[in-house]
Amino acid sequence: MSLPSRVRLIDVGPRDGLQNEKQPVASSDKIALVHKLQEAGLAEIEVTSYVSPKWVPQMADNHAVMQGMQRQVGVRYSVLVPNLKGWEAAVQDRPDEIVVFGAASEAFSQRNINCSIAESIERFAPVVQAALAAGVAVRGAMSCTVGCPYEGDIAPERVAYLAGLMKGIGVQRVDVADTIGVGTPLKVQRAIEAVLRHYDIDHVSGHFHDTYGQALSNTLAALQMGVWNFQSSVAGLGGCPYAKGATGNVATEDVVYLLHGLGVETGIDLDKLVDAGAFISGVLGKRPQSRVAVAILNKRAG
Amino acid sequence: MSLPSRVRLIDVGPRDGLQNEKQPVASSDKIALVHKLQEAGLAEIEVTSYVSPKWVPQMADNHAVMQGMQRQVGVRYSVLVPNLKGWEAAVQDRPDEIVVFGAASEAFSQRNINCSIAESIERFAPVVQAALAAGVAVRGAMSCTVGCPYEGDIAPERVAYLAGLMKGIGVQRVDVADTIGVGTPLKVQRAIEAVLRHYDIDHVSGHFHDTYGQALSNTLAALQMGVWNFQSSVAGLGGCPYAKGATGNVATEDVVYLLHGLGVETGIDLDKLVDAGAFISGVLGKRPQSRVAVAILNKRAG
Repeated sequence: MSLPSRVRLIDVGPRDGLQNEKQPVASSDKIALVHKLQEAGLAEIEVTSYVSPKWVPQMADNHAVMQGMQRQVGVRYSVLVPNLKGWEAAVQDRPDEIVVFGAASEAFSQRNINCSIAESIERFAPVVQAALAAGVAVRGAMSCTVGCPYEGDIAPERVAYLAGLMKGIGVQRVDVADTIGVGTPLKVQRAIEAVLRHYDIDHVSGHFHDTYGQALSNTLAALQMGVWNFQSSVAGLGGCPYAKGATGNVATEDVVYLLHGLGVETGIDLDKLVDAGAFISGVLGKRPQSRVAVAILNKRAG
Repeated sequence: MSLPSRVRLIDVGPRDGLQNEKQPVASSDKIALVHKLQEAGLAEIEVTSYVSPKWVPQMADNHAVMQGMQRQVGVRYSVLVPNLKGWEAAVQDRPDEIVVFGAASEAFSQRNINCSIAESIERFAPVVQAALAAGVAVRGAMSCTVGCPYEGDIAPERVAYLAGLMKGIGVQRVDVADTIGVGTPLKVQRAIEAVLRHYDIDHVSGHFHDTYGQALSNTLAALQMGVWNFQSSVAGLGGCPYAKGATGNVATEDVVYLLHGLGVETGIDLDKLVDAGAFISGVLGKRPQSRVAVAILNKRAG
């Protein structure tokens, strides 16, 4: 089995995770989470978003979190930006990277952001330009690259189309997200292959949801293609907005356990990571949605 | 990715699963579970065991279950047999296959059955002989083939040693079990490779636990070696006796979803399987320990 020797994980828990949790979380707890993640060795953290607080009240404290956290040298802090207004707010907080987004499903794009895929990407063009001119990196989150809650299966051609649009406006690297977690290894590989028509393997990351328990086998399949960047969420923060009670983002702990078991370097200390997940799960008053965390915490408890 | 075109699943829920659940289950409910599993298309079911009711009270109704169930043509019904006395009780109920067992870890063997690995297999020799003479098939369950709760990592040589002993007494096929769920894909492949010194690929099955969430990626890694027989437990019945609150047997629903997504035939109707798991979970008063079952049941509920 040929695998990359090292993997870089982007923990999206503070943003994608907490945004989808029902309870509000204090800015100080968000900052503590970012600190614990970087202490555990995470080299990339998606910290917050600059979406209107009308739509996403959980991220209304974006300035407080970005200004309040202690940055660590070598860590990349990214933030989600929905439009030019968001960019103008974000740039004040000096993110290392902004995240723009688009769906591979037309129905999802229409229902989620009320415009076509092509329109949504066009609108991001001036944002990407402004970011690159300011020396800020740009990542593109591509949702529904395997399945869509409205359309069902998504053809790889649609994924290639979205990746081409992203490339066209200057997005430097892209996340291939299985937003509803319906993917299985061969389908995920086909979606990634489609993206490789426009981006090289170093600029493609896998973002898998564990709704159907498939995230780690999809991760393995992506690793076997040479993908070495992945997103995950500490303690599986986030749930699944499309199936109540179900799992969403794959837990960072579970991905790290897989990678270390495969002999792949991550630079992450799993015990410290479990602590970070236990901390934020405690704040939310729930158990970590990570099988590795639960097993390790039970073992520690004896 | 080269994969087998079809896979045979052995559902161990009624035996391995229910044996490790705390609550007693009525024989009529066990029989109903077997019926629902075979209606869902399971071609192999591990029904019960003939261990002393002093040690395993949950299986004291072995005769009632085996005699009460309606057999379906083409389904193989297996039972666990710990010794000659167990065999003499089992043979009255006409199982298609008996399961004998041994650990790849000396410490586990000593603590679990109070004798060495070699002694445990020697004791099974007359059982295997009697079964084969009676035309009953014999499967060997090999526990702790990747890790042990007392010894930690298990060397592939120890797995090969156990497989050789099993072969020596006439065991026809073997299960490679990751009893505590600590395995990751390369370690599991090494354990299976060790077994292949004594058994061909058609006579090796994978038995993975999901304690650390790794069971499906281990299944994928085994599939890539050509393994096409797997054990799993409907609704993830069984928990993990070595880590309270943690997951044990991988859920059959999750394995079937993976396989169907990969285009691998199983002969199983996933919706009926989810019904079977929901039924027995209802009897136990808990949620199915299967992410696929939870996602599908949530979707059905709207």
